[in-house]
Amino acid sequence: MATEGKVIRCRAAVAWEAGKPLVMEEVEVAPPKSGEVRLKIAATGICHTDSYTLSGSDPEGVFPVVLGHEGAGIVESIGEGVTKFQKGDTVIPLYIPQCGECKFCRNPKTNLCQKIRVKRLVVYHLIHEVIPPLRSPPRSHPQLSRSPALSMNFKNFENAQSDGTTRFSCKGKSLFHFMGCSTFSEYTVVAEISLAKVDHMAPLDKVCLLGCGITTGYGAAVNTAKVEAGSTCAVFGLGALGLAAIMGCQAAGAARIIGVDLNPDKFKTAQEFGATEVVNPKDHSRPIQEVLVEMTDGGVDYSFECVGNVAIMRAALEACHKGWGTSVIIGVAAAGQEISTRPFQLVTGRTWKGTAFGGYKSVESVPKLVEEYMKKKLKVDEFVTHTLPFEKITEGFDLMHAGKW
Amino acid sequence: MATEGKVIRCRAAVAWEAGKPLVMEEVEVAPPKSGEVRLKIAATGICHTDSYTLSGSDPEGVFPVVLGHEGAGIVESIGEGVTKFQKGDTVIPLYIPQCGECKFCRNPKTNLCQKIRVKRLVVYHLIHEVIPPLRSPPRSHPQLSRSPALSMNFKNFENAQSDGTTRFSCKGKSLFHFMGCSTFSEYTVVAEISLAKVDHMAPLDKVCLLGCGITTGYGAAVNTAKVEAGSTCAVFGLGALGLAAIMGCQAAGAARIIGVDLNPDKFKTAQEFGATEVVNPKDHSRPIQEVLVEMTDGGVDYSFECVGNVAIMRAALEACHKGWGTSVIIGVAAAGQEISTRPFQLVTGRTWKGTAFGGYKSVESVPKLVEEYMKKKLKVDEFVTHTLPFEKITEGFDLMHAGKW
Repeated sequence: MATEGKVIRCRAAVAWEAGKPLVMEEVEVAPPKSGEVRLKIAATGICHTDSYTLSGSDPEGVFPVVLGHEGAGIVESIGEGVTKFQKGDTVIPLYIPQCGECKFCRNPKTNLCQKIRVKRLVVYHLIHEVIPPLRSPPRSHPQLSRSPALSMNFKNFENAQSDGTTRFSCKGKSLFHFMGCSTFSEYTVVAEISLAKVDHMAPLDKVCLLGCGITTGYGAAVNTAKVEAGSTCAVFGLGALGLAAIMGCQAAGAARIIGVDLNPDKFKTAQEFGATEVVNPKDHSRPIQEVLVEMTDGGVDYSFECVGNVAIMRAALEACHKGWGTSVIIGVAAAGQEISTRPFQLVTGRTWKGTAFGGYKSVESVPKLVEEYMKKKLKVDEFVTHTLPFEKITEGFDLMHAGKW
Repeated sequence: MATEGKVIRCRAAVAWEAGKPLVMEEVEVAPPKSGEVRLKIAATGICHTDSYTLSGSDPEGVFPVVLGHEGAGIVESIGEGVTKFQKGDTVIPLYIPQCGECKFCRNPKTNLCQKIRVKRLVVYHLIHEVIPPLRSPPRSHPQLSRSPALSMNFKNFENAQSDGTTRFSCKGKSLFHFMGCSTFSEYTVVAEISLAKVDHMAPLDKVCLLGCGITTGYGAAVNTAKVEAGSTCAVFGLGALGLAAIMGCQAAGAARIIGVDLNPDKFKTAQEFGATEVVNPKDHSRPIQEVLVEMTDGGVDYSFECVGNVAIMRAALEACHKGWGTSVIIGVAAAGQEISTRPFQLVTGRTWKGTAFGGYKSVESVPKLVEEYMKKKLKVDEFVTHTLPFEKITEGFDLMHAGKW
């Protein structure tokens, strides 16, 4: 039975309130409005940003909400005016859109399209991704009533569609969207400009990771830092983001890639991904930046902070070589925290930068990254540590937290 | 009477101890050793770094010392092995050398030659330069004894020549060198790699300013920030450094150059130098970064901190446009102070950098800047606010401090 134009009832992991576990519920997903696309989610990663928001630590978090922002799926139906997608397309939702028209999209220096304002742009991974693909077939109940449109002007559009309404409801209550994606649902609705069409042969339970972590870490090295052949790099934090940064450094031809982590269990994988050396700060009595400066005769050319810890951000900057070292912040620190250093660090030639989604303009780049993966130029499968059925999503969160350092 | 190979007695403004005024003394200047050049200083600027060191605020300051680092003069004699200079050459001493051989000199990304280690690389100007040219002819007394060589291993070579000795003495005491230049003396000795040969027609009481402030501010815009045509810039602090940064932004074709200062007396000159708008933070109740973000529809493309105040460094960064804004720290903060900001500022695409001597590789660049000045492509005369005889150097310091904001 065709579902187009009708409300779909399906399962979603609902975050009813801060600090409480997700609850698997039957939700209603309204049809896409103008400029929107409804898709069937085939697989989603779990990322620390989901967990951070769920915990209530994010002062901008709103509830109840359907979390998840790292998914892949198939277009179920399109809203009015949508021309770039059709039913059956294989797609990856994008938490940074690419409208192609705003001053950000027109500027080659940035990927931060502001057509839909998203507050939390970057996600940090403390462990590898956990992917609960959707095993059970989605149940659609189009005969049921349409979800009530919630008419509100949200400060933060990521929690609603561009008209200020949401497409999710459950037990008569509207549920907020999350980062424009809401992939913890069997069906979701996203803006057309927040969706990338990818190779229909791509395995969705793998390429969903290109919707956030892998792309972010890889792009930090190749786009934001522009790592050069022969250079020396240090990657702080060897979760998915760090492994992707290592992969980017290797692709760029770095001669030395030093992985830094407090958890020695992560070193083997880091070396498999391309780290030429690994260092555990616990093995040294001096600050890690001093250790790295000594190891590298003055400091590294490029460093990457993949943890979200402001003290590590400082160490990553100060581990850079005087005169030319560049440090890129990838991890996102908790609200209210600040980075600091002596200005002399910058005056003597170091550069401090950050990256969101690896600097990739999303709509045009994600399909290319999927292509690279399909040609085996980019590792993706290797990032997956666990694959679980959707109903075990809480177990997935537990697995992610267990890998924390 | 030839002075080569002999000790020269001449006047110098000696900083005997921290916190006390300079004292005009007769000093002995030993002949240059191997790789060194002795020059007659024709004119010197006064810079806030001289004042900062004299005040005793710099924990690395040593006394007694001959300060001054922004001079111009004529080669009097050369030491053994010196091939690039000869008696009579018109020269500018350089507080960052260019040996051409170290890994910094071989790297096009930096100008921070480490052959002679200098701690304080950048100087901050709170007002225009004050130039006390040497009016009275230097008195040389080569019959007097050579200054005793002070054999010490200095942690910081800037205070001595590369063999750890000094060429200055007074009343039987050795005097330290300063920043490898010590231009507050009628004669000084510098390393061959710390000297630029410039057009012999150049007026020395003007081009001495290319030894520090003008070059630093101008280069911050054209080299470090690489300001692009049509861009919007903000310059915080409208002293010599800020005026030079404005001049650099203008040379790069910036469309809007916003001068920021608490002292409205500086606005007219800033506009003469190319500022298209001026803003006084005192006229606004909101933080200046918010004012600038609003004035520029999202922030400036490039900002320059020319004060040396860590709060202004933060404001300059946060006044930058999301996605691509770059802020360059030029001013030097007091010892122990730190810059800070939310990492989100960087993650959303801003870049934080610093510059020393405007990123110019010194030996090869200063002659070109003198050339640009001679062709009237670069303002220099306009930076001079006062010209005083050397013996009035203390008055010069007073004039500099009176212009503080």
